[in-house]
Amino acid sequence: MGRERLYLFDTTLRDGAQTQGVDFSVEDKRTIANALDGLGIDYVEGGWPGANPVDSEFFADVPKLKQARLTAFGMTRRPGRSASNDPGLVAVIETGAVAACLVGKTWDFHVKVALGISLDENVELIADSVRAVRESGREALFDAEHFFDGYQANPDFAIRCLTAAHEAGARWIVLCDTNGGVLPDAVERIVREVTAHVPGDRLGIHCHNDTENAVANSLAAVRAGVRMVQGTLNGIGERCGNANLVSLIPSLVLKAPYRDIVETGITAEALKRLTPTSHLLDEVLNRLPNRHAPYVGSSAFAHKGGLHVSAVQKDPTTYEHVPPEAIGNKRHILVSAQAGKSNILAQLAEIGVDLDPKDKRVGRLLDEVKRREHVGYSYDGALASFGLLARRALDQVPRYFDVSSFRVIVERRHNAKGQLITVSEAIVKIVVDGETIMSAGEGNGPVNALDTALRKDLGKYSHYLADLRLVDFKVRILTAGTEAVTRVLIESTDDTGERWFTVGVSPNIVDASFDALIDSITHKLYRDGAPASVTVTPIELPRTAKR
Amino acid sequence: MGRERLYLFDTTLRDGAQTQGVDFSVEDKRTIANALDGLGIDYVEGGWPGANPVDSEFFADVPKLKQARLTAFGMTRRPGRSASNDPGLVAVIETGAVAACLVGKTWDFHVKVALGISLDENVELIADSVRAVRESGREALFDAEHFFDGYQANPDFAIRCLTAAHEAGARWIVLCDTNGGVLPDAVERIVREVTAHVPGDRLGIHCHNDTENAVANSLAAVRAGVRMVQGTLNGIGERCGNANLVSLIPSLVLKAPYRDIVETGITAEALKRLTPTSHLLDEVLNRLPNRHAPYVGSSAFAHKGGLHVSAVQKDPTTYEHVPPEAIGNKRHILVSAQAGKSNILAQLAEIGVDLDPKDKRVGRLLDEVKRREHVGYSYDGALASFGLLARRALDQVPRYFDVSSFRVIVERRHNAKGQLITVSEAIVKIVVDGETIMSAGEGNGPVNALDTALRKDLGKYSHYLADLRLVDFKVRILTAGTEAVTRVLIESTDDTGERWFTVGVSPNIVDASFDALIDSITHKLYRDGAPASVTVTPIELPRTAKR
Repeated sequence: MGRERLYLFDTTLRDGAQTQGVDFSVEDKRTIANALDGLGIDYVEGGWPGANPVDSEFFADVPKLKQARLTAFGMTRRPGRSASNDPGLVAVIETGAVAACLVGKTWDFHVKVALGISLDENVELIADSVRAVRESGREALFDAEHFFDGYQANPDFAIRCLTAAHEAGARWIVLCDTNGGVLPDAVERIVREVTAHVPGDRLGIHCHNDTENAVANSLAAVRAGVRMVQGTLNGIGERCGNANLVSLIPSLVLKAPYRDIVETGITAEALKRLTPTSHLLDEVLNRLPNRHAPYVGSSAFAHKGGLHVSAVQKDPTTYEHVPPEAIGNKRHILVSAQAGKSNILAQLAEIGVDLDPKDKRVGRLLDEVKRREHVGYSYDGALASFGLLARRALDQVPRYFDVSSFRVIVERRHNAKGQLITVSEAIVKIVVDGETIMSAGEGNGPVNALDTALRKDLGKYSHYLADLRLVDFKVRILTAGTEAVTRVLIESTDDTGERWFTVGVSPNIVDASFDALIDSITHKLYRDGAPASVTVTPIELPRTAKR
Repeated sequence: MGRERLYLFDTTLRDGAQTQGVDFSVEDKRTIANALDGLGIDYVEGGWPGANPVDSEFFADVPKLKQARLTAFGMTRRPGRSASNDPGLVAVIETGAVAACLVGKTWDFHVKVALGISLDENVELIADSVRAVRESGREALFDAEHFFDGYQANPDFAIRCLTAAHEAGARWIVLCDTNGGVLPDAVERIVREVTAHVPGDRLGIHCHNDTENAVANSLAAVRAGVRMVQGTLNGIGERCGNANLVSLIPSLVLKAPYRDIVETGITAEALKRLTPTSHLLDEVLNRLPNRHAPYVGSSAFAHKGGLHVSAVQKDPTTYEHVPPEAIGNKRHILVSAQAGKSNILAQLAEIGVDLDPKDKRVGRLLDEVKRREHVGYSYDGALASFGLLARRALDQVPRYFDVSSFRVIVERRHNAKGQLITVSEAIVKIVVDGETIMSAGEGNGPVNALDTALRKDLGKYSHYLADLRLVDFKVRILTAGTEAVTRVLIESTDDTGERWFTVGVSPNIVDASFDALIDSITHKLYRDGAPASVTVTPIELPRTAKR
């Protein structure tokens, strides 16, 4: 049986731009439009020309897309005007985009309450507006607002609106669940009923996630016959978001029954770009990627627990529903106290260390990890610190510098103008090649002051740290045993683009932060092959003063 | 038609505890178990006794729940041992819990690859283990691991495993989609087939969110006949999480067809606790609540734009799929200052301050709250700080003491024995009744040292603080504007049993902590009616030094 073509329509730049806290620049929009094009998305909705300056500017100079059809969004004409006399509608049609998607009402209640016009007039303005798009030589799409609520309230009227758009020449009639409240069984039943009036290969679906069913509703609609799915990257969108294309695409491409009944424009090669494309959006929005995101999250293929890990290594299909590489993701083996030897070995393999399972150092390392987790360390999220711990157990990490002491002062006092200010200053003493180097620094807090002082002079290592940047800093207060301890997790990066995570634990928050900082620096020195310090002085683990 | 009873089973404390980055203490587990009980959840799975110290401690002294059945999780007996000779299984059965849920294999492939035993032996160990639970007088549940993959590979064997558990007396046979890869249409079809062998009122469903369909899969299973749904608060769980009970519950209780075919143990009154219960978990995990969460997120009922807002105010059903109050959430009108004012008035009423809405001080207080929220304050979780802010705006808070300066030193150095130690010392200068008092203190970190110094001598206020205790201390790094700032939340208590929460915000963590500490002390002085300081010196807000 031949597969039918399923078209993917992305509205990240239009409906996604309605998300609380999201604010795209014109340049952001171009970047994302190009990434969507590279992924093989069929339609990219760029915004609403005329609605705001960013969208108008974007449509005034549209990006050249290789495959995707750039689409402008707008509303059907206003009551009491002809289509050509409605400047809002004209602005939407006359752009460099090849398609225009117009939203109109299909719920009788909204026609009466929000528009205050007759049902017949509403049908006319849908048909007129669609015709105006077609007459401009562009492809027309009709977004049937509140369709599912409207259909449940007055099916005849809702269907009349759809057929008016269809007969006026709309390529696609998109059934929108604007309030997001419909559930999958109702979507499937209603879409089947609609296909008696408009053929499925002219129907699209547009869902919101207000019941956490936007993905399932979209799949239900495909089963019932629609051949266009609308959604956004990472499911952004107002309230609870839109249908998440990043979750939908792999299910449609890789899984039965969808892979057998439809084909999309996404090649196996392009599918590998899904994870980086999802992360690109987070990058543009300056957000941390959701590690628990289906298919593309860093935890999506993470495994914990000894038996489990040894099975996954024998045969990944035992614990993985799809191969992570297919969507550009990776398998992660977690280190944890629940873990056995096989986890440690897998984790070692991931950082490039191959050891015989019978090697005594594996058991010693496992004991050390367990001991540290007991006092509050967690290596699940701090692979760079785990790497250092492991390589130290194997004597692979050169001694670089020793910290012989540090001191931080945080002071709140009156300045010369009589204002209360708070200042932080730090002094650090380190030993490199047998020589003591003392540096001072200030910062907007104790950790920042220590970081400044440390980097001021690390002797022969200073130039390795020129591009080191702290990206994130997380603090968690834990109770380990009977004492409250602080766990600090630091995320760092440099010009190579690598991101690494290090951890420090202590009852003293400054102490914990300092240790995580030192691990971050040491990771970079090791990775970059910095030479050892010439004179090695004996070092001890710090102990915290008891009160 | 009578509705059938649908049972809700929460595994936040067991499967949810597998989430990367989640780390419950015994106290956390008790808090959450009680909250689930208050919500009307039928079964609370507390953990796996014997698997780790926290779970063993939790089950050694189980919380008394009013309605929920506390359940212990474990594995079916090991091959080659009798149930009573398997210490792991015995540890799971012999707890204070009234039910035990045992996981066993139902996928032939896993039986061969992971266990390396015959299919017949697997069936026997399921039956034996279930029988052992029943013989202990407890309710038995059987978690059919990898059921959907197993059923697709070898349906006869998978069904044999289920019927063995059923015949051995398991109250519930739970169909688990362990790898999370199954889609809703397959769930519905397979569950219907299973009901030919085991009745639906003995069947449960346990889904993972690897395709973003965990909620939809659970709903599909209910349609097909299962009468138990397993999931977690906020959908936490390993990889991409478990089915989110917070999203499932309102759909099951409020929406067709579910509200017409099943009834849960959740009353309309308890349903209003859903939003606070979801936020409680975030609080325990020291996470920001997901504002886009279905039903309970702060954006879930957020409305923007004039037309839209006036329509929603005329008739909320135009843009809301359910009433937000039903689940303890609120409508948010994003552009309206009115909404803010009514919030402030509601909050003032909560702390016992009644003001006329037209009082100018209400508007001023609202502006101040908005200004502070913009720089990172959050008063949702810090009602004591809000109370002080509000009462100060009304000139109701006496001036007690002024802090003229403080200094903290954190030092890591070698002690007399040559060991590295870290010490924290603080000096605080305050003014009471026009007199300067200077005190020094040390602690296991900078905040503890400041607290010690502050309390050493507060002049005539010292005796008010004798029973003041800091219970918890939470740190969150935020980005407000372009700067990273630190928000510190302190929980305090005293012999009255009251618990109060105060907040401090600054780029400097010590500064933020100090301000939260001062608010905590001031709250207690105000509540206990301490007299004002006799000589009042002018005070200014601290400013942080710019670098």
